[in-house]
Amino acid sequence: MNTEDIKGFFASKEQLDMADYLTLEYYLECVGDIETALAHFCSEQSTAQWKRVDHDEDFRPKYGAKVINLKVEGELSELSYPVKHSESGPIHACRVTIAHPHRNFGPKLPNLLTAVCGEGVFFTPGVPIVKLLDISFPESYLLAFDGPKFGIDGIRDLLQAYNRPIFFGVVKPNIGLSPDHFAEIAYQSWLGGLDIAKDDEMLADVDWSTLIDRSYALGKARLKAEQETGEPKVYLANITDEVDRLIEQHDIAVRNGANALLINALPVGLSAVRMLAKHTKVPLIGHFPFIAAFSRMEKYGIHTRVMTKLQRLAGLDSIIMPGFGCRMMTPEEEVKDNIQECLQDFGHIKRSLPVPGGSDSALTLETVYNHVGSVDFGFVPGRGIFGHPMGPKAGATSIRQAWQAIEQGISIETYAAGRPELQVMVDGARKKQ
Amino acid sequence: MNTEDIKGFFASKEQLDMADYLTLEYYLECVGDIETALAHFCSEQSTAQWKRVDHDEDFRPKYGAKVINLKVEGELSELSYPVKHSESGPIHACRVTIAHPHRNFGPKLPNLLTAVCGEGVFFTPGVPIVKLLDISFPESYLLAFDGPKFGIDGIRDLLQAYNRPIFFGVVKPNIGLSPDHFAEIAYQSWLGGLDIAKDDEMLADVDWSTLIDRSYALGKARLKAEQETGEPKVYLANITDEVDRLIEQHDIAVRNGANALLINALPVGLSAVRMLAKHTKVPLIGHFPFIAAFSRMEKYGIHTRVMTKLQRLAGLDSIIMPGFGCRMMTPEEEVKDNIQECLQDFGHIKRSLPVPGGSDSALTLETVYNHVGSVDFGFVPGRGIFGHPMGPKAGATSIRQAWQAIEQGISIETYAAGRPELQVMVDGARKKQ
Repeated sequence: MNTEDIKGFFASKEQLDMADYLTLEYYLECVGDIETALAHFCSEQSTAQWKRVDHDEDFRPKYGAKVINLKVEGELSELSYPVKHSESGPIHACRVTIAHPHRNFGPKLPNLLTAVCGEGVFFTPGVPIVKLLDISFPESYLLAFDGPKFGIDGIRDLLQAYNRPIFFGVVKPNIGLSPDHFAEIAYQSWLGGLDIAKDDEMLADVDWSTLIDRSYALGKARLKAEQETGEPKVYLANITDEVDRLIEQHDIAVRNGANALLINALPVGLSAVRMLAKHTKVPLIGHFPFIAAFSRMEKYGIHTRVMTKLQRLAGLDSIIMPGFGCRMMTPEEEVKDNIQECLQDFGHIKRSLPVPGGSDSALTLETVYNHVGSVDFGFVPGRGIFGHPMGPKAGATSIRQAWQAIEQGISIETYAAGRPELQVMVDGARKKQ
Repeated sequence: MNTEDIKGFFASKEQLDMADYLTLEYYLECVGDIETALAHFCSEQSTAQWKRVDHDEDFRPKYGAKVINLKVEGELSELSYPVKHSESGPIHACRVTIAHPHRNFGPKLPNLLTAVCGEGVFFTPGVPIVKLLDISFPESYLLAFDGPKFGIDGIRDLLQAYNRPIFFGVVKPNIGLSPDHFAEIAYQSWLGGLDIAKDDEMLADVDWSTLIDRSYALGKARLKAEQETGEPKVYLANITDEVDRLIEQHDIAVRNGANALLINALPVGLSAVRMLAKHTKVPLIGHFPFIAAFSRMEKYGIHTRVMTKLQRLAGLDSIIMPGFGCRMMTPEEEVKDNIQECLQDFGHIKRSLPVPGGSDSALTLETVYNHVGSVDFGFVPGRGIFGHPMGPKAGATSIRQAWQAIEQGISIETYAAGRPELQVMVDGARKKQ
């Protein structure tokens, strides 16, 4: 590209009608001349060839992606990660803001993904290292999306649970239990105080626990638990399956008494989530398999924040995500960003309930609550409830006791006295030390 | 886990009925005791809790993933990429083979992805660095999949093109052309000798070029080109869209004369590809957006080989992939692996046509052909045809001339004499030097 060519891929925000553009934030490592690399980066993700041969035309003003902000963070002695590539010259770490015209693809998730993290973005000469950090949408673009049907408020109404976290539990053993045994364990956990007993993200419709049998057993158990406790309960059934079976799986599970559905968002695809969200009669909760494969590297891939935003846009009423602490290998700021993405203003799109998870129990509730900084979250132990030495009912009780301690501002160790369900957890932790 | 617990996640291949298992190859960096880390790795991806409290049972023999081979490649002074994690101790680079019981999820792509690159795999204590390198399937599992409907042979029959590569071209300008102008350019390229004129992966159904209008214009132009040349031609329409519109988009495009369809596999999701493959009346060609985000790091994420294999399993008749040379930032061996994945025996699943691409032209054909080592590939220039100084017809002609030179064993420079379409490409390259 010559100097004139390059200019066509730069603009100031003031020159553009930003209602026509998505705003993309990238971390890039550019090799060689920075402006040349960035012009290519915009060209490759939009108008790779912006005129026909022998025609006097220029598609860049209307269809070209454009750099609207550039911050060169510094020169690097080498790429942050080794990648064989075609250019040579100095290497610069850059933060770049790009205005990308959404008329190029419209309000469709697969086409959006193709534009913002597709071939153009990841195969630009001179830009071997790329991380998509954020996307912002104009109001007009958001209006094409319905977002969550229920959101946090809908989930709270369903459970009649306000001013506190929502207590989930992943029924364990997660793989191998017959539907009846599974139902018995979930029932016990509801009696102990759980709001939502859920299928593991790996348990779906299998021969030895078909969705039809499991949702039937769990639907019955849920009603029994509701009668016994006088509280609404939720069975969260995992309907992750081939996309042409999702609607049918929804109908089977809901008919049998599942009153929320789990879907593994990236494995089925965000677009399938959007399809399901249009159809669903109950809240949809998303799980996070596959996302770490492209988000864990600090300077390469796609930031989890983008995926949380897109999952909310696709219509998930609640989003399970890697939570706090080294166990989940996600920096604290990143977990907070993702929680924020669920809760902050997003046009007309309802708030999703964030569920930061990972090896939780009664002993981690206070830390998670303090990190989140509000009661608007879901808490999702697995073995912390279902591996509790006194059984699942006691496991669930221990979680509610931990919350009572927090509400009353009493230390968990003090509150455990005379409460064997919590005491056994506190003692277990002491032994490990 | 204690020593007895750990043993439950190791087995020798001979002890297992391998028809019940997928075989997974991983590169892992393990922190602390290797066997403990690997037992956790298997546990987290299968039976995270393998018995109920107070029950004498063990779900591991039937449902547990098991290490069947381990090669410790060496000790590392630090992780290959910095990741905050929970364990401490020596760090070892390992190649691990795992037998994962497919009864845990069945022959379903979203559930397979959840198991082999989901939460369990990427969030195991002591295993912060993971790359899924390969998956092997037993015959019984493959039988649940149809694979490509047409495959290489079907595409060759459609085009009556044998014993040579298939010549694709990405119509450019890729974004911004009206359907009529787009059709005129494609028509010219067919006259020049192209087999398949294709939509760019970023061009789908948009206001300014709806699929219905574009496929109508291109369908007519294709018939005209076929009459004029006496050769079958293909218009490859990109129907990438929200998954609940894919079947309708297929029907519109095919009715209008598109006789192959492009789909961006990861953006719509592999499961949506499988759904479309069941329905399609024409060959399906896959494009590769999004894949680089999780495959470029040598030691983290998911190898492209796995994605090529799964795209073939999902039913793509042809797979466009990053090709040879530094321009596409993919090691030569990896491109060859991906080509091999399209062509090698895979149970009853038909062969897919590999299309290694990236900034190709008449000048790169010989190199690509030599690298592939056979005529069973597609060649897919964009600007190399549609940015040709003499126009798209000459651009396509230059490709065919380059192939004639190769067939006749004549150097391209010699063959260009008296053939202005090829000569101008050779001269252009000389000027750049």
